[in-house]
Amino acid sequence: MSPKITVELLRQLRQVMKNSKYLKEPIQAYIVPSGDAHQSEYIAPCDCRREFISGFNGSAGTAIVTEQHAALWTDGRYFLQASQQMDNNWTLMKMGLKETPSQEDWLISVLPDNSRVGVDPWIIAADQWKNMSQALASAGHALVAVEDNLIDAVWEDRPPRPSTPLIALGLKFTGLTWQDKVTALRAKMAERKISWFIVTALDETAWLFNLRGSDIEYNPVFFAYSIIGLNTIRLFVDQKRLADPVIREHLQLDSPGRPELSVQTAPYELVHTELLATCAALGPKEKVWICDKASCALTQTIPKIHRSPIPYTPLCLSKAVKNATEIQGMKNAHIKDAVALCELFAWMEKEIPKGTVTEISAADKAEEFRSQQKDFVGLSFPTISSVGPNAAIIHYRPLPETNRTLSLNEIYLIDSGAQYMDGTTDVTRTMHFGTPTDYEKECYTYVLKGQIAVCAAIFPNGTKGHLLDSFARAALWDAGLDYLHGTGHGVGCFLNVHEGPCGISYKTFADEPLEAGMIVSDEPGYYEDGSFGIRLENLVLVVPAKPKYNFRNRGSLTFETITLVPIQTKVMDTGLLTQKERDWVNEYHRECREITGTELERQGRKEALDWLMRETQPI
Amino acid sequence: MSPKITVELLRQLRQVMKNSKYLKEPIQAYIVPSGDAHQSEYIAPCDCRREFISGFNGSAGTAIVTEQHAALWTDGRYFLQASQQMDNNWTLMKMGLKETPSQEDWLISVLPDNSRVGVDPWIIAADQWKNMSQALASAGHALVAVEDNLIDAVWEDRPPRPSTPLIALGLKFTGLTWQDKVTALRAKMAERKISWFIVTALDETAWLFNLRGSDIEYNPVFFAYSIIGLNTIRLFVDQKRLADPVIREHLQLDSPGRPELSVQTAPYELVHTELLATCAALGPKEKVWICDKASCALTQTIPKIHRSPIPYTPLCLSKAVKNATEIQGMKNAHIKDAVALCELFAWMEKEIPKGTVTEISAADKAEEFRSQQKDFVGLSFPTISSVGPNAAIIHYRPLPETNRTLSLNEIYLIDSGAQYMDGTTDVTRTMHFGTPTDYEKECYTYVLKGQIAVCAAIFPNGTKGHLLDSFARAALWDAGLDYLHGTGHGVGCFLNVHEGPCGISYKTFADEPLEAGMIVSDEPGYYEDGSFGIRLENLVLVVPAKPKYNFRNRGSLTFETITLVPIQTKVMDTGLLTQKERDWVNEYHRECREITGTELERQGRKEALDWLMRETQPI
Repeated sequence: MSPKITVELLRQLRQVMKNSKYLKEPIQAYIVPSGDAHQSEYIAPCDCRREFISGFNGSAGTAIVTEQHAALWTDGRYFLQASQQMDNNWTLMKMGLKETPSQEDWLISVLPDNSRVGVDPWIIAADQWKNMSQALASAGHALVAVEDNLIDAVWEDRPPRPSTPLIALGLKFTGLTWQDKVTALRAKMAERKISWFIVTALDETAWLFNLRGSDIEYNPVFFAYSIIGLNTIRLFVDQKRLADPVIREHLQLDSPGRPELSVQTAPYELVHTELLATCAALGPKEKVWICDKASCALTQTIPKIHRSPIPYTPLCLSKAVKNATEIQGMKNAHIKDAVALCELFAWMEKEIPKGTVTEISAADKAEEFRSQQKDFVGLSFPTISSVGPNAAIIHYRPLPETNRTLSLNEIYLIDSGAQYMDGTTDVTRTMHFGTPTDYEKECYTYVLKGQIAVCAAIFPNGTKGHLLDSFARAALWDAGLDYLHGTGHGVGCFLNVHEGPCGISYKTFADEPLEAGMIVSDEPGYYEDGSFGIRLENLVLVVPAKPKYNFRNRGSLTFETITLVPIQTKVMDTGLLTQKERDWVNEYHRECREITGTELERQGRKEALDWLMRETQPI
Repeated sequence: MSPKITVELLRQLRQVMKNSKYLKEPIQAYIVPSGDAHQSEYIAPCDCRREFISGFNGSAGTAIVTEQHAALWTDGRYFLQASQQMDNNWTLMKMGLKETPSQEDWLISVLPDNSRVGVDPWIIAADQWKNMSQALASAGHALVAVEDNLIDAVWEDRPPRPSTPLIALGLKFTGLTWQDKVTALRAKMAERKISWFIVTALDETAWLFNLRGSDIEYNPVFFAYSIIGLNTIRLFVDQKRLADPVIREHLQLDSPGRPELSVQTAPYELVHTELLATCAALGPKEKVWICDKASCALTQTIPKIHRSPIPYTPLCLSKAVKNATEIQGMKNAHIKDAVALCELFAWMEKEIPKGTVTEISAADKAEEFRSQQKDFVGLSFPTISSVGPNAAIIHYRPLPETNRTLSLNEIYLIDSGAQYMDGTTDVTRTMHFGTPTDYEKECYTYVLKGQIAVCAAIFPNGTKGHLLDSFARAALWDAGLDYLHGTGHGVGCFLNVHEGPCGISYKTFADEPLEAGMIVSDEPGYYEDGSFGIRLENLVLVVPAKPKYNFRNRGSLTFETITLVPIQTKVMDTGLLTQKERDWVNEYHRECREITGTELERQGRKEALDWLMRETQPI
């Protein structure tokens, strides 16, 4: 991976930062956040502005360019990758390390007095704007909204915003009609005396209307806003997309029923104008919900007196708690996904000794096997197919110039998933096709112990996921080891593979308590830079638990694992496992045989079934 | 415990809330926080305003009185106690339960439009003021500072503010002179370009000047403020206290050395005037540190442009990391304390069968034994001596009307500690002097497993205490049980028994990472209302750990237990313990024999030594 050469680009950007065509007064620094106007994690090519200017293409990071400096903040998953993708015009700021300054502190330390720091108000979230603005003001600087995006100003050949065909999902996939979802949302609005709710997150609009798109790779969403009132539904989307009769029928555009359930549509770009008009007509006590992570521009369109910012919207919370249809869909998707992975591993076992399997060909093969499964739509994120030292790059993606051939000597890590019409998958397995070293086995076993500790945990109702994070680390900590990423994230149902409001992390972000029906990942790891990487990831469904007692009638929860792919026993140091842990492994493999095995048999995939049976022998 | 009758008091307070003698305009609600002007947890009688108005005397809670309602918020430790101490004019708001509204939400739900909510700005912390003020403003109400305290206005016979003699601590107790501490503080100020630091917490002034007092029961502090500049030291304290030649000599008041280390003293009440003068003379870029938990009144005296609020002051952080002298002092104090407790338990074992030991007499006996130890100063908090159902009241304190006689049939819980010149102790043991039930043993063993899990944990440098909290609960959670309090708090050295900035709690307060030299408690519990209570508490010192590996050279930490009192093995269900846990118990008891046993022998306390030897037999 060779770094992007950014000398000329930075020169151009610094010129634009002083150009009166874009700015009344020059700015001394320009912030380039990661996201788009919807604070999406994965973004469309037209929105990859931080990658364009810095070269770093990880999913999280913020670039700041001053007259003298260029710096990029990212987290532990990406330290290695960022350092490889950026040239020496850039300083890598490793978030989470004690010595790393915050963006605010760094700006204050490098800026001349009374500086102006610019940012695109459509890209920065309202809460980030507020924090940054206050911190800069306290040091005599000002954060200013720059309406024209300055990266776009220097970006020749910037791709256009996509507008892919929409897919309408029926009840058999969603469990609830969009009309029912709107009605439930309005009940929550009425309960909190809210007149309007501005839906800015793409997956929330997609979930609410039971629609999907493919505007953003891997995330089946489409560019849209919606504004829901107690009697009004407005959907802002490229109007061309509504020509499809299936979509018109789904949204009942030509035969609206009750007026309060008829959808008014308008072009995507009109959301700002329309929101201004809506706010102008508000009564003195009316309140408008908007996510506090929505764009600063849209948030500030709502007068402060009417604005009611919320960390997690009611749609975000409803979407996270899967209904029975969605749970069944997610389970089905995972069985199909397990079939594909068993095929992959059986194929690899045969092919690797020939020396012809590479990271890229393995990833392609995984996609090929997945695409043979029913209702396959696409991948849910770029496959991390990595061997040896590449596996230590936590969010590695193989490229022709880094592509490594698999061998019997190195650990192989594959973190991959797919979108099926009935659900989204995300699974990581770490395999050794030869003989692992004792040290590799030791580390692998600590990671496994952490994974088991989380998914076997019983905890009271109301517990937030971050309280479970240390369970995943205890075995590693005991040995002086750790990993620099969270343990789990929420997962959507045929939606984004990373989804709030729940998660399992050492970071105490404002996560919401785990609830029965939520689905999160359980994925501890261990990484040695330049040497190898280990991660084991299952998706787990939060389910009620029935322990011996029931303190204060609070009820308890635990996890049901829905990923059903064997965990390689050859790499386990079984002497480090407790009897309970060995029992867990054997019971898990029994379920893999029963469920994945049955499906492999039904699909007549004999070689993969043989592989599964061999890999799931009791330890 | 019969509730305080508050009908007349509330009537008087509501009249004062409309009285133009105190207020320009009437207020519709009055907030009565728990603390004093220094945000102390334990407070002097003259500051017990929330207790005076509500009857509830726990260490944490906020009362709010409106024209129609009176409500009190407190946490799980105090639910039972508060419900018993308050009459039916009061609504108990159980913090931490999902259905309990926040103070802000409750006020908004009960107040008429455009209400004014009053609070004493010297009592409410600046950060609480800010949050409350913003929340009320967003609903059209106003938070207003009421300079005259309205509780004082209805409180006849309010006691005067205490002014006890000061004690000067020499190097053999402190390890550092106050001059060295001032110099170290100034280095931190210079590093962050801070001109002044306003010391508002009583224990910070006490620690900085190596002085102690007894203005507040159990906390060896004295009412004072200090203002530290880069060349100035100002101490605000009742001037009578400085007549003592020992104190004058300690502070070098009559023979100041270098000017920047000479202490200027002024009366306690002058801090406000003096701070106004200091701020008036500030240069345009000068910054003043003040804790964000300092009083709103003092905080707002500093112009916003000069104000630099910090969650934990450098003194708070320095004080928390004990130096070698302090660590040795804390260990000595714990050996003496263990001697006293062994004596107590040996005495109880003999006396309880006679039916003459009560909760109060046991607590008195504990104090008597402690007072015989060298450098004993007093208790570090009111002894919780509780039997049977009383032990389920987490912060119970025996009163004549609740006093229960100990028997062979009920579990006994004693949580107690002392102030010695060399250190502060805090220890809880739960004992059964007859035959515990299987259920009691089961619960006790889960609590013990939690205690061991925390103190045996190894974790990376930089880990915050809250990440360890779930280790204390895992065994209870597995059985569907839990406890509604944190697992640990920082402890001062001959200072407050509850001390920031570290702790171990499920609450994600902004705790600072654990560092070698910090001392925290490790005290899980289990409580069945109306039946019994179990808690086991040791103090533990954070020490470097040397696990097998050292990930990214971060280093690891663990705990060394400094409490050395046997943990009753009779109440353990050893079948529920792992071999590792049994080894821990046996090793702990070996240390108790070696260290406490040696001291018991040296002091010639034969009966207690015999008891210790019997109680520490291997399991």
